[in-house]
Amino acid sequence: MHIGEKKGDKAKVAILDYDEAHVQEKEVETIEECSVFKDQPTVTWIDVDRIDHVETIEKLGGCYGLHPLVLEDILNTDQRPKMEEYDPYSFIVLKMLYYRDQSGQVDAEQVSLILGKNFVLSFQEGKEGDVFGPLRDRIRNGKGRIRKMGADYLAYAMIDAIVDHYFIILEKLGERIESLEEALVTQPTTGTLKEIYSLKREMIFLRKAVWPLREVISSLTRGESLLIQESTRIYLRDVYDHTIQVIDTIETYRDMVSGMLDIYLSSVSNRLNAVMKVLTIIATVFMPLTFLAGVYGMNFKHMPELEWSWSYPALWLVMIAIGVVMLVYFRKKKWL
Amino acid sequence: MHIGEKKGDKAKVAILDYDEAHVQEKEVETIEECSVFKDQPTVTWIDVDRIDHVETIEKLGGCYGLHPLVLEDILNTDQRPKMEEYDPYSFIVLKMLYYRDQSGQVDAEQVSLILGKNFVLSFQEGKEGDVFGPLRDRIRNGKGRIRKMGADYLAYAMIDAIVDHYFIILEKLGERIESLEEALVTQPTTGTLKEIYSLKREMIFLRKAVWPLREVISSLTRGESLLIQESTRIYLRDVYDHTIQVIDTIETYRDMVSGMLDIYLSSVSNRLNAVMKVLTIIATVFMPLTFLAGVYGMNFKHMPELEWSWSYPALWLVMIAIGVVMLVYFRKKKWL
Amino acid sequence: MHIGEKKGDKAKVAILDYDEAHVQEKEVETIEECSVFKDQPTVTWIDVDRIDHVETIEKLGGCYGLHPLVLEDILNTDQRPKMEEYDPYSFIVLKMLYYRDQSGQVDAEQVSLILGKNFVLSFQEGKEGDVFGPLRDRIRNGKGRIRKMGADYLAYAMIDAIVDHYFIILEKLGERIESLEEALVTQPTTGTLKEIYSLKREMIFLRKAVWPLREVISSLTRGESLLIQESTRIYLRDVYDHTIQVIDTIETYRDMVSGMLDIYLSSVSNRLNAVMKVLTIIATVFMPLTFLAGVYGMNFKHMPELEWSWSYPALWLVMIAIGVVMLVYFRKKKWL
Amino acid sequence: MHIGEKKGDKAKVAILDYDEAHVQEKEVETIEECSVFKDQPTVTWIDVDRIDHVETIEKLGGCYGLHPLVLEDILNTDQRPKMEEYDPYSFIVLKMLYYRDQSGQVDAEQVSLILGKNFVLSFQEGKEGDVFGPLRDRIRNGKGRIRKMGADYLAYAMIDAIVDHYFIILEKLGERIESLEEALVTQPTTGTLKEIYSLKREMIFLRKAVWPLREVISSLTRGESLLIQESTRIYLRDVYDHTIQVIDTIETYRDMVSGMLDIYLSSVSNRLNAVMKVLTIIATVFMPLTFLAGVYGMNFKHMPELEWSWSYPALWLVMIAIGVVMLVYFRKKKWL
Amino acid sequence: MHIGEKKGDKAKVAILDYDEAHVQEKEVETIEECSVFKDQPTVTWIDVDRIDHVETIEKLGGCYGLHPLVLEDILNTDQRPKMEEYDPYSFIVLKMLYYRDQSGQVDAEQVSLILGKNFVLSFQEGKEGDVFGPLRDRIRNGKGRIRKMGADYLAYAMIDAIVDHYFIILEKLGERIESLEEALVTQPTTGTLKEIYSLKREMIFLRKAVWPLREVISSLTRGESLLIQESTRIYLRDVYDHTIQVIDTIETYRDMVSGMLDIYLSSVSNRLNAVMKVLTIIATVFMPLTFLAGVYGMNFKHMPELEWSWSYPALWLVMIAIGVVMLVYFRKKKWL
Repeated sequence: MHIGEKKGDKAKVAILDYDEAHVQEKEVETIEECSVFKDQPTVTWIDVDRIDHVETIEKLGGCYGLHPLVLEDILNTDQRPKMEEYDPYSFIVLKMLYYRDQSGQVDAEQVSLILGKNFVLSFQEGKEGDVFGPLRDRIRNGKGRIRKMGADYLAYAMIDAIVDHYFIILEKLGERIESLEEALVTQPTTGTLKEIYSLKREMIFLRKAVWPLREVISSLTRGESLLIQESTRIYLRDVYDHTIQVIDTIETYRDMVSGMLDIYLSSVSNRLNAVMKVLTIIATVFMPLTFLAGVYGMNFKHMPELEWSWSYPALWLVMIAIGVVMLVYFRKKKWL
Repeated sequence: MHIGEKKGDKAKVAILDYDEAHVQEKEVETIEECSVFKDQPTVTWIDVDRIDHVETIEKLGGCYGLHPLVLEDILNTDQRPKMEEYDPYSFIVLKMLYYRDQSGQVDAEQVSLILGKNFVLSFQEGKEGDVFGPLRDRIRNGKGRIRKMGADYLAYAMIDAIVDHYFIILEKLGERIESLEEALVTQPTTGTLKEIYSLKREMIFLRKAVWPLREVISSLTRGESLLIQESTRIYLRDVYDHTIQVIDTIETYRDMVSGMLDIYLSSVSNRLNAVMKVLTIIATVFMPLTFLAGVYGMNFKHMPELEWSWSYPALWLVMIAIGVVMLVYFRKKKWL
Repeated sequence: MHIGEKKGDKAKVAILDYDEAHVQEKEVETIEECSVFKDQPTVTWIDVDRIDHVETIEKLGGCYGLHPLVLEDILNTDQRPKMEEYDPYSFIVLKMLYYRDQSGQVDAEQVSLILGKNFVLSFQEGKEGDVFGPLRDRIRNGKGRIRKMGADYLAYAMIDAIVDHYFIILEKLGERIESLEEALVTQPTTGTLKEIYSLKREMIFLRKAVWPLREVISSLTRGESLLIQESTRIYLRDVYDHTIQVIDTIETYRDMVSGMLDIYLSSVSNRLNAVMKVLTIIATVFMPLTFLAGVYGMNFKHMPELEWSWSYPALWLVMIAIGVVMLVYFRKKKWL
Repeated sequence: MHIGEKKGDKAKVAILDYDEAHVQEKEVETIEECSVFKDQPTVTWIDVDRIDHVETIEKLGGCYGLHPLVLEDILNTDQRPKMEEYDPYSFIVLKMLYYRDQSGQVDAEQVSLILGKNFVLSFQEGKEGDVFGPLRDRIRNGKGRIRKMGADYLAYAMIDAIVDHYFIILEKLGERIESLEEALVTQPTTGTLKEIYSLKREMIFLRKAVWPLREVISSLTRGESLLIQESTRIYLRDVYDHTIQVIDTIETYRDMVSGMLDIYLSSVSNRLNAVMKVLTIIATVFMPLTFLAGVYGMNFKHMPELEWSWSYPALWLVMIAIGVVMLVYFRKKKWL
Repeated sequence: MHIGEKKGDKAKVAILDYDEAHVQEKEVETIEECSVFKDQPTVTWIDVDRIDHVETIEKLGGCYGLHPLVLEDILNTDQRPKMEEYDPYSFIVLKMLYYRDQSGQVDAEQVSLILGKNFVLSFQEGKEGDVFGPLRDRIRNGKGRIRKMGADYLAYAMIDAIVDHYFIILEKLGERIESLEEALVTQPTTGTLKEIYSLKREMIFLRKAVWPLREVISSLTRGESLLIQESTRIYLRDVYDHTIQVIDTIETYRDMVSGMLDIYLSSVSNRLNAVMKVLTIIATVFMPLTFLAGVYGMNFKHMPELEWSWSYPALWLVMIAIGVVMLVYFRKKKWL
């Protein structure tokens, strides 16, 4: 069984019950209070924010008649996004993503939705915060059409909130890619390499979280769940478009990042080339000169050149000539 | 909400209303004037060139009964090309591309089309210029068959103008690729590398803008929209062919550009090799000679060679011999 | 014929026969005892743990009416996972994977299942251990719903046990990838390279074993076998999800490992660059200085500088100046 | 509008009209003569070899009732291969390829076919030569079954001639790949690199020309055109096989060429390694020796070694020993 | 027309005619003898082992009513594997592969099968040997079920023999890959590189020969040929599994071989790094020392250090100190 990190104490269960006219909100202690809302015609949203309280979830599961496999899947936070039809309800698994500014990493929290005729149960892993704040406000204030619609619209609104948040993460990653591109052009360092690798990982991670979503929302749009009404389907088509757009952008970013690695490699090779040219020029100029100086530093008795009075300045001229010829040669080869 | 850059002042709304006999053109101030054309049998083209005037678009949307999601999509300029059926009208999103000569970059402007029974609404982001100039002239002058056909043909003509403009961009990029190829063969520099990367990015960008278009036009051709008449469909098939041709060319360019990067890397390695050979030849020739000179520069009391009168010229001969042997050896190894 | 390694002596045949009320377990010597269970209404699981006893398998095949091709496939341990319908039974081939801690390698054992109306025959290669221990306990103790269900549920439970064990292997590989990543960042060595290659191989191996499983379980879920009851199918759908998850993770790991190789190559190039810079700095500083020292070590009679009393300290100053200029230059080029 | 290079003067229009008994051939001046053949039961092949004469093509189009889009497509030589059904005729676009021996490049000429009930119109760009020579001979001499069959068989025979010619181009490219492979093994040079790149480009070009053909011929084989009779379809299936074979070979060549680039890169690295080893060995042997010689070239007053009579030969022994130890060490490291 | 190499003299035509009770075998001289068997109820296998005898094949084709395109395909040995339905017979093309131990290359021989109601015609290119030996023995001795079955089973048995032989080739290639892997780890040389490339080519070749087979056997299994009886189809399903297994293994090998090239490149870079470190250490240690020795070898009149009695040993100490500091530094940087 693959279960996320435990975080102690109690589960947080928040209930939001509404219809066009009324809205009622409370945080419950005992799960028994949930059953009150079950048979009312109002739309009920029960949000459980700590799935490590197995009893809480099992009680809720019992109350709403959830299949044991569904409960297992809710507890297992390594699920990939999916949608499954169980007769009186639909089970949807999604990934809510956060961008951690300190570490520059994308963090995922699994959200499981149970969509019934007049209720939505949502289960979060219990990580701090979620993306449903504005949605809750819209319900409380009765803004928009949410209060007039059913549970299926509520589920849509939640999926929409999650998918819309992906764009924020993409924007952050886009900024990182842009600044990386600039670094690549101006002064690539080993840090650039690590950043490329880290971005590559984020992309792989993101892709794994978002790719299956396409299938999920597509099947919701096609009307595989009988709980989704025709009027809501048009909104889901919009979310579907957003998902495709997210996937497109991820693929584009992937392409760009792997293009960067190639450029990085090329520019490292280029700099190596530049370094080697400096070395070669220096060595090629000074080695023959040092050799000549060495020759006239020899102690042979019979070295006639040593006696001639003009040979020292003549040698200087020769050496300068050699140096100049070398440099001209390198300039012609475009090494300078 | 992802909305493009604001550009101040007023929206430009241009109306072109025509049938086979008449044509009427005006720029309106208040959107209310638009509703006049709504119920006439003539074909009406309302072109809004600045989508940042939200009120203008909402009013127009109200007048023509557009769905809130459509209005949202028109305002969001990060859409990918798509086609959506709403009951009495079709909603089409396209990307109009420009080639910016100064920066060498491809710039995109989103165009949203609403195709109704006898009208086409088009919404542009408000970037300077568009590709519909020749089309407007054809309507004004009554050239070609456009004045005899309905709104569906107008929509086709607009899509055709946009897709045809892609070829101009491809031509520009093709020229850049060709000059890059030549640079690669004659003298690859760091600039070549940056140009390769920049071309690669343009390709990714282009691909993202054009690829979904295939699906859009294909679904128009298959007759998913009831507003498209049989006689227009044959023209759309032609646009479809053009789109495939554009995609094909983009893919070919991508292949060529990534081939170039490989060649660039190889040729950098080659040049490094050449540099190292020069260094090695110089070092291999002069190091032993310098060593020998150093030996006879030593100050030992008892070095018999130093006394002999022929040892200095003999050493020169030995040193020349060593040098020649080395060079012959390198020639045999094809390093020279 | 491709048959796995022989391991001598006798086949181990274990029978587990149960219904809701009773459970009977025995290890048989002669295969004839198996036929006793054939026509009873209880669920019978016959597990053969050494397929190199051809007679044993042929006798069992005769008793349960297995097709010669099925027997051949059971004996051939190079099968890929598959499912085949033979009229009164289904034939399923799976790969049971073990992680060998000593060698760090993933080892596979082929498991062939014959699912009949009220029996499951399983054939293992005979490698030590299997993953069915907990399942056997559940049958013995009557825990869970297994004793209440038919042979199809038993087959599901076996497949589930095998697939669940894949996660353990993925976890081990995940740990290796993580520690490899760290090594890559801190101090990449040749060992890192070998580890990358070894992980790459494991991924290829794993992929080959798991990929076809998807198809197998999918066809079981779709109800291609009439022996699978509706109530069991919902459990198979769960296994199917797990399989997809395993495949997803393998693909992610593959991406990460091949990303690592790129990073490794880049960082090797980087280090080469660093080494070359050190060499170049040293050579560029000392070659001119050594040349100067060589010049004033020459033995020409007429070298006026040698006579001047301040020329030695002056030369030192010149040499120090040259060195400082060089270092400043390299600092400016960011080589230091 | 994308139109190929203009080549001046007149269009060449050749008419070949035949049935089982007669054959009539002429080159016409005015296109009006074409209409004579239109309503005869004989098969008429009108071959226009210079599409830049727009009037010629438009007159012919008028005579045979061709759609304006078809005429446009004929004039645009950047079409990709395609097949389109227009009611009384089929429109097929193909690429005829030539291998230019001088430049080693593959050149394409677009051929547009109009297949009607009893006629085939073919339009070539006007490049010198075509591949229909043997076909014309077969018609003139009444060899084979061509004179007994209808216009659909003629169209088949033309497509077959074009596809068969692809094999000749593949053979030429195959020879180049083989000689490249040999060069790669014996002595890779910068020229090898350019040849690899040039082959890669040819492959991309070829692929673009041939790939869509598959779809074209497949749709002809499936009988989408009512003009193709059952008896001809079996021959088209044969052409389809050839097309697949051509595509297969192109893919194989692509794989081989990109494999070559990897090998080239590896062998460049290898040679760099070899060069560096030579340099390192030389430097490692002579640097310590030169240092020692330098030490005993110093002019200190108090250097007792200088006085001893055996120190010079002893130093030689030491230096030889150092050199030998170095070389043994390098041999052990397999650098020699 | 693409025809394999000619090999002179006569075609070898071997006839094997059998039913459950009798078997008759002969090698014929004139093809006319073949027609005797045509209308008998026994199963007839006519094996032609040299397709360069065009007359032989044409006569046989006439006798059995083969379509001219089939005869053409039989003579053309560059076919890819395929299956085609002609009304009273099926035409199947396969590749028989041999492993040439001397050259280490995989060689292909095309086998064309004509499956009729009660006969199988097989055409081989005429390369030495085939894989049907054991099959012939089984027919002669009446072992297995072959004598009891019809011509469709004979065709299956032939395909099975060919596909089973692929495993032997894969095993040989697997051995080569394994020994290559070991070489890669212990001591990669230029030979390793050539072996990698050669293996890569074999894989491309193998893939091209085997990949289309999948489609061929799949269509036989699906019952597209009416000549294949239900009872034989279950055996073909088995061959299909084997084919998939072969393709799987080829893909795995391809992955492994291209992984090897990456590793090879990395390890070449690694060794280059090691070489450069040695060079850099030597140069960095000795260059400053040689410079110092050069300084005190200068001949300035006024160099006070030269007079001091302790300056020579002091310089040695300084030089040793410099050397030690350098080595400690390199050790700290992990270069030693």
